[in-house]
Amino acid sequence: MKIYKEKIDFKSTTQLEFVDLTDRVEDIVERSGIRQGQVLVFAQHTTLGIVINHNESMLLQDFMRVLYKFAPVDDQYSHDLFELRRDKKADGRSNGHSHCKALVTGVSETVPIEKGRMILSDIQSIFAVEFDGARKRDVVVQVTGE
Amino acid sequence: MKIYKEKIDFKSTTQLEFVDLTDRVEDIVERSGIRQGQVLVFAQHTTLGIVINHNESMLLQDFMRVLYKFAPVDDQYSHDLFELRRDKKADGRSNGHSHCKALVTGVSETVPIEKGRMILSDIQSIFAVEFDGARKRDVVVQVTGE
Amino acid sequence: MKIYKEKIDFKSTTQLEFVDLTDRVEDIVERSGIRQGQVLVFAQHTTLGIVINHNESMLLQDFMRVLYKFAPVDDQYSHDLFELRRDKKADGRSNGHSHCKALVTGVSETVPIEKGRMILSDIQSIFAVEFDGARKRDVVVQVTGE
Repeated sequence: MKIYKEKIDFKSTTQLEFVDLTDRVEDIVERSGIRQGQVLVFAQHTTLGIVINHNESMLLQDFMRVLYKFAPVDDQYSHDLFELRRDKKADGRSNGHSHCKALVTGVSETVPIEKGRMILSDIQSIFAVEFDGARKRDVVVQVTGE
Repeated sequence: MKIYKEKIDFKSTTQLEFVDLTDRVEDIVERSGIRQGQVLVFAQHTTLGIVINHNESMLLQDFMRVLYKFAPVDDQYSHDLFELRRDKKADGRSNGHSHCKALVTGVSETVPIEKGRMILSDIQSIFAVEFDGARKRDVVVQVTGE
Repeated sequence: MKIYKEKIDFKSTTQLEFVDLTDRVEDIVERSGIRQGQVLVFAQHTTLGIVINHNESMLLQDFMRVLYKFAPVDDQYSHDLFELRRDKKADGRSNGHSHCKALVTGVSETVPIEKGRMILSDIQSIFAVEFDGARKRDVVVQVTGE
């Protein structure tokens, strides 16, 4: 059993953004030398999601709209009432809505690998979904198998 | 470490449908000969989800209703404005809502295996959730372990 | 390849509750002796979710509010019409809303392990999310790697 890890660094440019990481994950799978197994894409963040879907620019607008409806940025979030929070690590960002969105997308995806490549269909892309940009971000890519 | 893969083929019969794959996944786990490890159920699709919950026919109606509320089929989706899309691979289906639903369910689930069987409770079923049927579909089942 | 499993038992105290399992999962990873690999946290339940996010008490209130909006406890759910259900295993709990919430959070999370520890950021916690408490619950923790 072989385990190989790399990080992907990127910079989001807007508050809500779908960043397509498919090619960079594919490169890491290739560098791992692993022919059969799995790749885990994991975000060490609480306002960034990892999802797999179709990279079609107008569809991405639809995703943003339904996620907005689920947790509108212009609602009131207790998390944003800094005066009342006892949490030492508050970073002063009004990002209650961002955490809520990340709750439903999840922070990881696992993709099977066969013959050295991810088993993804032509229209599947792996996205990091920025819910609280613009920011520098990184994502862990761990390949396991043989 | 052993890795075993099969595909499950099925045909959905309605637009929104919960297809219970538990028995077929269980059979694959048995055929794999793997006694201890994990099984990854992965959909190579962008309008099909994989979830684990209770297969109770009236509950499935509830699931459909809350997913409808999340992304109503009768809303307007930019993805469905074919005249404006520059995407070469458009298949002409008005399925913006289907992609949105798949975004929150995710396209995979991983279940632990012990003594040759999945560790599922009696009322847990593994579903492929069709968001854009009726269609022929397939799902990848990858068993890893020893 | 090494595989190690333990269960975490806990008791939820309210209907909707975020139970932070991070320290107990970390202890299991340590006891496993696995230095490099993954840990899968899996709930054998249909009204309990597993998520990773920030353990900040006021944010947890926000999570509860958006999940309430997604599947309000005071809506009508077909699952709760016991007179009409043919399901032998009905437990008589009016928990249609609980199942619906579990549908979007999912029942598992996978976290990479490096140098014997989970790769989590300082503000990431692993939660079991109780959607139908108070109850006794357990969660499977499976560590794989070497």
